[in-house]
Amino acid sequence: MERENDLTHFNSDGRAHMVEVSEKEDTFRRAAARGSISMSTPTIELIKEGGVKKGDVLGVAQIAGILGAKQTSNIIPMCHQLMLTGVNLSFEILEDKILIESQVKMYGKTGVEMEALVAVSVAAMTIYDMCKAVDKSMVIGDIRLIYKTGGKSGTYIREGEGIEY
Amino acid sequence: MERENDLTHFNSDGRAHMVEVSEKEDTFRRAAARGSISMSTPTIELIKEGGVKKGDVLGVAQIAGILGAKQTSNIIPMCHQLMLTGVNLSFEILEDKILIESQVKMYGKTGVEMEALVAVSVAAMTIYDMCKAVDKSMVIGDIRLIYKTGGKSGTYIREGEGIEY
Amino acid sequence: MERENDLTHFNSDGRAHMVEVSEKEDTFRRAAARGSISMSTPTIELIKEGGVKKGDVLGVAQIAGILGAKQTSNIIPMCHQLMLTGVNLSFEILEDKILIESQVKMYGKTGVEMEALVAVSVAAMTIYDMCKAVDKSMVIGDIRLIYKTGGKSGTYIREGEGIEY
Amino acid sequence: MERENDLTHFNSDGRAHMVEVSEKEDTFRRAAARGSISMSTPTIELIKEGGVKKGDVLGVAQIAGILGAKQTSNIIPMCHQLMLTGVNLSFEILEDKILIESQVKMYGKTGVEMEALVAVSVAAMTIYDMCKAVDKSMVIGDIRLIYKTGGKSGTYIREGEGIEY
Amino acid sequence: MERENDLTHFNSDGRAHMVEVSEKEDTFRRAAARGSISMSTPTIELIKEGGVKKGDVLGVAQIAGILGAKQTSNIIPMCHQLMLTGVNLSFEILEDKILIESQVKMYGKTGVEMEALVAVSVAAMTIYDMCKAVDKSMVIGDIRLIYKTGGKSGTYIREGEGIEY
Amino acid sequence: MERENDLTHFNSDGRAHMVEVSEKEDTFRRAAARGSISMSTPTIELIKEGGVKKGDVLGVAQIAGILGAKQTSNIIPMCHQLMLTGVNLSFEILEDKILIESQVKMYGKTGVEMEALVAVSVAAMTIYDMCKAVDKSMVIGDIRLIYKTGGKSGTYIREGEGIEY
Repeated sequence: MERENDLTHFNSDGRAHMVEVSEKEDTFRRAAARGSISMSTPTIELIKEGGVKKGDVLGVAQIAGILGAKQTSNIIPMCHQLMLTGVNLSFEILEDKILIESQVKMYGKTGVEMEALVAVSVAAMTIYDMCKAVDKSMVIGDIRLIYKTGGKSGTYIREGEGIEY
Repeated sequence: MERENDLTHFNSDGRAHMVEVSEKEDTFRRAAARGSISMSTPTIELIKEGGVKKGDVLGVAQIAGILGAKQTSNIIPMCHQLMLTGVNLSFEILEDKILIESQVKMYGKTGVEMEALVAVSVAAMTIYDMCKAVDKSMVIGDIRLIYKTGGKSGTYIREGEGIEY
Repeated sequence: MERENDLTHFNSDGRAHMVEVSEKEDTFRRAAARGSISMSTPTIELIKEGGVKKGDVLGVAQIAGILGAKQTSNIIPMCHQLMLTGVNLSFEILEDKILIESQVKMYGKTGVEMEALVAVSVAAMTIYDMCKAVDKSMVIGDIRLIYKTGGKSGTYIREGEGIEY
Repeated sequence: MERENDLTHFNSDGRAHMVEVSEKEDTFRRAAARGSISMSTPTIELIKEGGVKKGDVLGVAQIAGILGAKQTSNIIPMCHQLMLTGVNLSFEILEDKILIESQVKMYGKTGVEMEALVAVSVAAMTIYDMCKAVDKSMVIGDIRLIYKTGGKSGTYIREGEGIEY
Repeated sequence: MERENDLTHFNSDGRAHMVEVSEKEDTFRRAAARGSISMSTPTIELIKEGGVKKGDVLGVAQIAGILGAKQTSNIIPMCHQLMLTGVNLSFEILEDKILIESQVKMYGKTGVEMEALVAVSVAAMTIYDMCKAVDKSMVIGDIRLIYKTGGKSGTYIREGEGIEY
Repeated sequence: MERENDLTHFNSDGRAHMVEVSEKEDTFRRAAARGSISMSTPTIELIKEGGVKKGDVLGVAQIAGILGAKQTSNIIPMCHQLMLTGVNLSFEILEDKILIESQVKMYGKTGVEMEALVAVSVAAMTIYDMCKAVDKSMVIGDIRLIYKTGGKSGTYIREGEGIEY
């Protein structure tokens, strides 16, 4: 059916609007997103040492990601204002990249997918910022939604991700 | 020399600080960044039509990217406040992805690399937000600095990018 | 009765406060506002063409109005923080002015009149900003509440407006 | 010449951008704007008394206008970030309306017209907010630029305004 | 029991997170905080006169405190976003200091202690700002929670404070 | 002379304004502030351990203080927008309190005293937030300017502080 494919963020004039959701039911909603930032092995080593000796790059990225998630409705124009009930991030340091995962929770009327994506994206950019003096060639990538639960559209689980939720 | 490799964003206690730059000279500075968002061909088609008939997804993304660039110092904790003199974004629609490029300019004491990366990242997430009702599997990727000019560290040009600057 | 006429935003010291509303009931609330920006006919023509050829002034104004509505409690000091469930704007281009209308919806404890007024006002100022290089004499005017529904004070409909709600 | 009439806020793709101004010279810049909010005589009386006995509506409006002026580049999408050097507002209470005037000053590369308009507009909406419990029919109007000085385009003085600058 | 003493704001990796509260019940919550700013007697005199003749320092501080309370979740990284239902501040001018008290109310899932502390702290700093041209030696102190009610942890009343709540 | 004692933040109507500073010269400016947060010894112990085992309370406070300093002109109504060139914080853990010191630098037209005070105050409140689950009786105090340099009013050094600047 054609309507199913519509981009819901446009009004009858073809201009963007913030979709009316007052009739949606309040449900418990969760979303997780993942992404990565690739970098040279020496930069990875600096971050690892930093966590111990010189400064905790990932600690700063974590806080930036949480603050970013709370700012989502100001950063992404058509996002609804939400009161998140929980935000967490975790990092895994591989040989040439850092994996980032966010988990966002809320009880309310719309999903928190964008909040999860913003948390990962801001965390990745913060890592870039803190390491760019030694490595400008880092690449942020693979930012994607891993799962979402709650709401009328139900649960989405991205294929091929090892997830626990 | 070892000091060259230090992460400059940490103070002598090993905690993050905003690096002192008052002695840096004011120079004209530019940076460009690129990234992409991959999606299914039907979603690409919806965006293309939308530009004409139902709504301009990329127009919203463009504005979000510009506003995001101006918010960089609030989003990325250790970034300096800057007065950008120009911000632009451009998009290229391929068969299964949209390429995004930002260009940021300023006359001042620190580089605008982060502003360029934030512009691309926020534009990509805005596209995700506006299309997520029809496609949750989109992936944001390859967010990278293309070049920067100005300042003591001079010009950086990423290898292998076809650029005009 | 005298109390009815009190300005409720002042406390017993005569200083401004944010009125306590926790005992108000949650109801579905709507508000619409209208306003206009007057300009010369050539400027009107530029905007009309722009929508097709050079750039969509009203598209930018629309997004600014929606983002502005979400920022109302930061812009207007005594406004409560609200989670809007929907925001829309529409424009009508006349010969020498552009009419702007906003519609805001929410389920909650206080009305959304201010959000509707902010949306119209910010949209009008954005149009001014984007056209001021060619016309500095534009005038923003007639910004007014058209109707509000919901809450203990019930429905208000401004006289003499052709409205559908 | 046709170019003179172009809306400068659009790039070659016809999308909005933040105009590059780094080559503009730093000059001392000033702008003033005016506007009004019309209301019933009893509401005017309440505000007048309030200034003495119950609360200073115009004092709150003044602060809101100054904070709003500083937020202009976040509220109006294509505005440059500026460091204002001075902002002032003044009010005149007539029988059925309040006149609002803002004055904004800065030394820099772009004009402060929008900051002056935002200050007046936010002050007017704050007055509306603080009085709306007693009068919902107030109308905000006649928001206009009175003069601007500085920059390549020089001085603009709106005709028919009694101004001292 | 050891767990009782844990700092709840850290996740299993030892990094900060925003504590998940979705299972907490919505209750009516209140908090009050107090603090003071000490200054020389002549500065106190200037503020007292100012309220009448030259400007209302405490009126500006009051508005800043209310706006600050609404910004708490952006200022304090791990704070949840809340929709406050009421905020009030009051001041008492002594011979060599000004006492500040805030009262914050809300119906929701987490306490409003931080909002009350931010209101007092921002009000005190605003007083400092407005008087610093005549007195740089003012000291802000004794910022403390007076009571909180609501939620699972129940009521907290600070000893030795004369309170009415 | 009487004028010397005036509160400069009020205009001729007795209302607050943002003082005009465009004629002030650009000079290198520094400010430092200090404050403390008192708490029970067990809470101090938790923070000390946390830095190693469970989470770095002071690391979060540091970032919050830096972000807060950059937001000063939005938090304190009459503050000018500034582009800080450097912000740092340091902490000293005593037996029953934590001492906080901020250092802020900038090249520009107005002093950075308020930015230094905001950094300390926000850092202290962040410590409160992260420890309040175990100790609600903490008191934030002694927030004061230690020194400022630069500008027409020259250098201020608070008596009795052991400072290095």
